[in-house]
Formats: sequence, structure tokens, C-alpha cells
Amino acid sequence: RIDGARLWDSLMQMAEIGPGVAGGNNRQTLTDADAEGRALFAKWCAESGLSMGVDAMGSMFARREGSDPEALPVYVGSHLDTQPTGGRYDGVLGVLAGLEVIRTLDDLEVTTRRPIVVVNWTNEEGTRFAPAMMASGVFAGQHDLDWAYAREDAQGKRFGDELERIGWKGEEEVGARRMHALFELHIEQGPILEAEGKEIGVVTHGQGLWWLEIRLTGKESHTGSTPMHMRVNAGLGMARITDAVHRIAMSHQPDAVGAVGQADIWPNSRNVIPGRAVFTVDIRSPDAAKLAAMRAEVEAEAERIADELGLGLEIEPTGHFEPVTFDADCVGLVRAAAERLGHAHRDIVSGAGHDACWIAGIAPTAMVMCPCKDGLSHNEAEEITPDWAAKGADVLLHAVVEAAEV
Amino acid sequence: RIDGARLWDSLMQMAEIGPGVAGGNNRQTLTDADAEGRALFAKWCAESGLSMGVDAMGSMFARREGSDPEALPVYVGSHLDTQPTGGRYDGVLGVLAGLEVIRTLDDLEVTTRRPIVVVNWTNEEGTRFAPAMMASGVFAGQHDLDWAYAREDAQGKRFGDELERIGWKGEEEVGARRMHALFELHIEQGPILEAEGKEIGVVTHGQGLWWLEIRLTGKESHTGSTPMHMRVNAGLGMARITDAVHRIAMSHQPDAVGAVGQADIWPNSRNVIPGRAVFTVDIRSPDAAKLAAMRAEVEAEAERIADELGLGLEIEPTGHFEPVTFDADCVGLVRAAAERLGHAHRDIVSGAGHDACWIAGIAPTAMVMCPCKDGLSHNEAEEITPDWAAKGADVLLHAVVEAAEV
Ligand SMILES: NC(=O)NCCC(=O)O
Ligand SMILES: NC(=O)NCCC(=O)O
Repeated sequence: RIDGARLWDSLMQMAEIGPGVAGGNNRQTLTDADAEGRALFAKWCAESGLSMGVDAMGSMFARREGSDPEALPVYVGSHLDTQPTGGRYDGVLGVLAGLEVIRTLDDLEVTTRRPIVVVNWTNEEGTRFAPAMMASGVFAGQHDLDWAYAREDAQGKRFGDELERIGWKGEEEVGARRMHALFELHIEQGPILEAEGKEIGVVTHGQGLWWLEIRLTGKESHTGSTPMHMRVNAGLGMARITDAVHRIAMSHQPDAVGAVGQADIWPNSRNVIPGRAVFTVDIRSPDAAKLAAMRAEVEAEAERIADELGLGLEIEPTGHFEPVTFDADCVGLVRAAAERLGHAHRDIVSGAGHDACWIAGIAPTAMVMCPCKDGLSHNEAEEITPDWAAKGADVLLHAVVEAAEV
Repeated sequence: RIDGARLWDSLMQMAEIGPGVAGGNNRQTLTDADAEGRALFAKWCAESGLSMGVDAMGSMFARREGSDPEALPVYVGSHLDTQPTGGRYDGVLGVLAGLEVIRTLDDLEVTTRRPIVVVNWTNEEGTRFAPAMMASGVFAGQHDLDWAYAREDAQGKRFGDELERIGWKGEEEVGARRMHALFELHIEQGPILEAEGKEIGVVTHGQGLWWLEIRLTGKESHTGSTPMHMRVNAGLGMARITDAVHRIAMSHQPDAVGAVGQADIWPNSRNVIPGRAVFTVDIRSPDAAKLAAMRAEVEAEAERIADELGLGLEIEPTGHFEPVTFDADCVGLVRAAAERLGHAHRDIVSGAGHDACWIAGIAPTAMVMCPCKDGLSHNEAEEITPDWAAKGADVLLHAVVEAAEV
């Protein structure tokens, strides 16, 4: 069993870095706060005698040696970056539970045959620089390194420049490492486990996703003296497409979600018809055919609405992953661990994207989930209990040790 | 006749101050650019020998003496502040045409019986500090001075502090002046005059307006892992209310307009259900009963939509004026001047609010309109011809001189 109090204490220490405004965290990727969080994690890894590798995307790999120098390592981890109004557990739990696995093995003086590597993936959240799960995506060969470096934040700052600025651009080639397996513990970020009184989610699949950035061009004009039939209102187009995204997701129930999370209009003045609107659509489903159908429907509706209102329309996909099926053997280790430990569990589909979803394409991968209160995440009020965290980390410990072989 | 070339030259000189990004202007109220524009206008007034009074709202009053020291003055003017992406004529034409009236009378060595005062009203646009037509509203007794001082911009800066900062808080009590009459020349900001080949709009009425700030509170949560039925999506509520405002305005055609010009959601992140939305509704009609009905319908729809989605709802009126009927005698002077000068004209209702609309409540008032290309305003591409400007200023000259008596 892991040390639940020690794990919780580390979570609370990390949460002090990049505090939010309402009890959560704002430790967005490649900010000074991110650098501070990385330094604390690196210090803890050094204290546990781990050797640290950093790749050219800034992902951190802290390695505990195994008894067999030839054996491929077992990876365990998640991400330390947060949403702008993020919680204290989303990602962080997975990294620090990985570290707690190491600390527990040290306490027990157990050496596994395979090395164990605790990983902190850069820019999982994707808020500051789209897309999400960026570094694991480059690692898995989904994106080019140079393309990732060229991503810009809202201020026009480039990912590559900011990575260099905070001092975490490593030497290591991205994706050069080979893995025996990877395990990621993450909070559910949804309401299912808590509602059903389950302590552990055995993640069998992950939803697929499309992010579409939609840009509408209308004509700025006066709200008072422009007759209704002469308006070319980009804000009205955005409103109608936002409603259409909701309608389309509802028409594909169950197993489909859709929303507009980001929306801006110009010039954003009370008495000016908006001449430009830029917003992002987020649609997801665990069913690839459904996901493709939703994308086609959103695009068709956007075209119809833009036509109807006389608006210029551009649609740019800014994020995508296909639905994922996790490795049956790794999933089996997670399920067996929950069983052995006597924790109430169920199979579950991940609603959110995770670094593990990309890695699943290149190595045997599985995920463990623990409940979070009211299913709330991407919210500073995100909350879990120390007991949930400890039980999740215990399952992680057992699955990792099984995979790494004692 | 006024000197059209001189008027145009002054317009172009003023347009150099606070340039926009696309050929127009960003000379928002109480910015450094506003101060610079005021200084140029003051310099021109001094060159014409006018005496300058400035009231505690920063409105500027440049006076040319008449032959009768007891006679109440005739006022003429508009505003020099612009939208964030504003044109070069909205407001500016009315102030500089007033100055051109003075310059023309000087050229002709004509002294009127009544003094003539050229006025530049502070914060007509209302973008930085709501509501619009703020200084003329305080002048007309519609707002308290202290209430106006306490208005805040998006950065939380107070109107009173910014007025002081730019050095244009005058000593004069606001609204203490009495007027024989006021005339305002303004571009139409709509498409009617140009479409009908008219050079002059004789403004008989002004539309009434309500500005409603609507604030919706939902629950921030993850776009991927929150099931559709558990979402409390403030952005979706905003979208539906935005569409409802359009629908309501369409159902009251003709003589009704409605739109949402300003809209913000929080945290504005691709994969977060918006937990908060703040936006402003702008509805107008020349018919007081229709305006009241539209407000009631917008509020009812907002309540219905907020209920349906489980959102918290606050509605705050942030701007209002009733429909205006301009003074029949003053309107008659404008119509007679257009007639006498042989300019194609028609009676028209002002779609936009103007300082003259407030002054109409305390003094005999009328407005002259000239066409603008494609009816475009509150847009940097706002355009008029030198000929339209000159004809509008000629009508203004004749109406003002008639009222001021030679
Ligand atoms: N887990 C998580 O929030 N990942 C960010 C990518 C996504 O929106 O699913
Ligand atoms: N003329 C003008 O644009 N005034 C601002 C107030 C309004 O929106 O009508």
C-alpha cells in the first residue's frame, strides 16, 4: 500500500504553486508557475535518487533503475500543467501518484526487474497552446516537433520560444524512448463513479475528439441605424452555431457531447453589430462513426447559418484524436489490482483526452480513474478525497509492479 | 455658403489624432487621443476668437458673441470621441461644421443678434463608459454628476478619475447654461438617404433605446467528461438569448431593431463549459409602446432560457432613452434651409441616439443628417463625400443663422 498521507501532502505542496483565484490552480503550461512546479517535482525526484531526462518538448522522465538493465521500462505519469481556472488534481494526481509508487517501493526496498519511469508530459491542457496533449502527441508521432514549436498563444508567443524561456527545452529526441507499458492515473472529471459509489474506474476506452475553430466575417455597423435586413451579424451567426452544436450533440445521445468553450466577437461594443466572431467547437464520442457524423453535421449547419446570414466562414480543425481502445492486458492488470485490493470498481470510458490516449497508439497502455466530487473539473472547485487518491494510487502501484515484475 | 474645402481639411486633420487600424479612428473618450483632439479643437476655437467654457463633465463650449448681450445663445455641435473602431465623421462632422459656421460668419463679417456656441459633448459613444450621450444626459438632468463620475471602464477606471487625468474637468456647473435652441449635424449612420438619393435628412424624431446587461451564471466543467444532461452552460444561454433578441426585433418590423454587440464568456477555454457569460442587449424603436413590449419580451425570453438551462440570471438596464420628437419650429428651419439651398431632402427618424436627443428635453432642438456610404458607421470604413459634408454644413449654417437672427 502507498502512503496516502505523504501523497496528499505532496499534492497540497504542488497546489501552492500557481494558485488560482478560488482555491484551485492557474499553472498553465510554459508559464513561470509551470517552471516552478517542474522544479519542485525535479527536486522530489532527485531526493528519491531518480535520474532525470528531459526531451525537446520539455517532457520530464524520472527513472528508477530495475534489476535487468536490458528490460524496457514501465512508464507511469500524467501532467503538472493546469487550466487557467483549474483544479489541484487534474493531471497532478497522476504524476505525484507515480512518484508515490517509487517512494513506496523505496520504503519496501523492492527492486523491480524493469526500470520504472515517472513522466510529466508538457502541455496536456492545450488552453494556452492548442492542441491538448501536445507533447505526448509529438512523442507518439502525431505532430511534428517544428509544428508544435510554432503553435502560438493568444499573445502571439510561440511554444518553442516559451519552452526555451522557462528553461525546460531538453536535449533528448522526442519519441526516441521505447516503453514496455504505460499507466496513467487520473481523476474522472465526470460524475459517474461518484454517483455509482465506485472507487476505481477501469478505463477501457477513450472518446475521440474534434476541435474546430470557426471564424465568421460580417460587417461592423451601427446597432441603432442599420435596418434589420441590412445587417451582417457575425455574433448572431456564432450564437446560432453554438446552439446547433448543442442540438447536434443531443441528437446523438448517448455517447456524444458537444459545446463551444471559447468565443470572442469584435469590436465587442454595445452599439456595434459584431463584424467578426472566432470560437471553438469541441465535439466528442467514443464511437468513431458518430464522431465523424457530428463533425459533418456541425460543418453543414455552420455553412447553412453563414449562408443564411451572408457571413464569411472559415473552419479550421485545431485538435483531433480518434477513439482509443486501451491494451487488454494492461487494462486487465488494473482490473485485477482493484479486485485484489477490494476496491469498488467498474469499467469506464474516458470522456476527456489524456496523454495515455496518444501513447496507446505506440505502446501497451491503460488508465486508472478515481472519482471527483460532483464530476467537477476544469473548475477551481474540483475536489477529491484523500481516500480516493490513496485507493487510485494503490491500484496504480499494483498494476505497475505487476508490469515491471518483482 | 460654407467653405467645403476648409471643412474637409479640418476633418482630415482631426482624423490624424487617434488613428485606427484600418483608416478610421480610435479616439475613445477620456483617452490621451481624446485630450489631443480636444486641444486641437480648442486651438482652432481660439484662432477664431471664441471664448471657451468647460463644464464639470468636460463638455466644451466655444462662444462667439452676438450683438445682444442679453439674448440666449444658439448652440451647435456634436462630439469628438469615437468608437474603438470608429469612423472619421461620426460626431466629428457636427462639431467641425459648427466651427465652420463660425468661420463662415467671420469671413462674411456677419454678427448675429444671439451668441452662437459650438459644443463638443463628452462621451457620446458610451463604449468605454456606458451609457452613451453621457455628458449631454447629465446636462439635461437625466443623470447625476456623481453617478456619471463613478462609471467604470473594462479596466475598472472611473470616469471622474480619467476626466481629471486628461486635464479636462472644468469648473462650470453642468446644465447651468440656458439655450435658445440647439442644432446638431450628424451623418445618418444608416442607408436610407443614400439609397433614395437624398442629400439632407430633416430629422423629425429619434428612436428610443434600452440597453440591458445580462449576466448568466452556470457551472464551469469539462467539455469531454460532463454528460450533456449535467451541463449548466452559460455560453449556450447567451447564444439562445442572442438569437431571441434578433427574433423579437424581427417580429416587430418595421420600426424595431435589436442586437447583442458585446459578449464575453468565462473562462473562455476550448475544453471548459462556460460558467459565466456577460453580454449587452441593444433594442430600439421610435414607438414607445413597441420599445416597452420588446424589453418585456427580451426579459421574459431570457428568464425562460435561463430556467430551461438552470442558469442564474441578472438583468441590469445600463442605458435608456425614450423616443424623441424634435421641436417643430427648429425642424421647420432645417427643412426651409434645405429647400432654399435646393438640396434633395426627406424627413427621417434618427436610428442612433444623439446628444441632441437629450437636449430636446430641455430646449428647442433639431438635427440635420447627411448620407454616409452604404449606411456604414461604427466601422473604420465609414465614409462620406466632401459634397455631402458641405451641403449638410450649409443647411446647418442657414438654420443656425435664422435662429440666431442677423
Ligand atoms: N484531461 C483533460 O482535461 N485533458 C485535456 C484535453 C481534453 O480536453 O480532453
Ligand atoms: N450616434 C451614435 O452612434 N451614438 C451612440 C449612441 C447610440 O448607440 O445610438
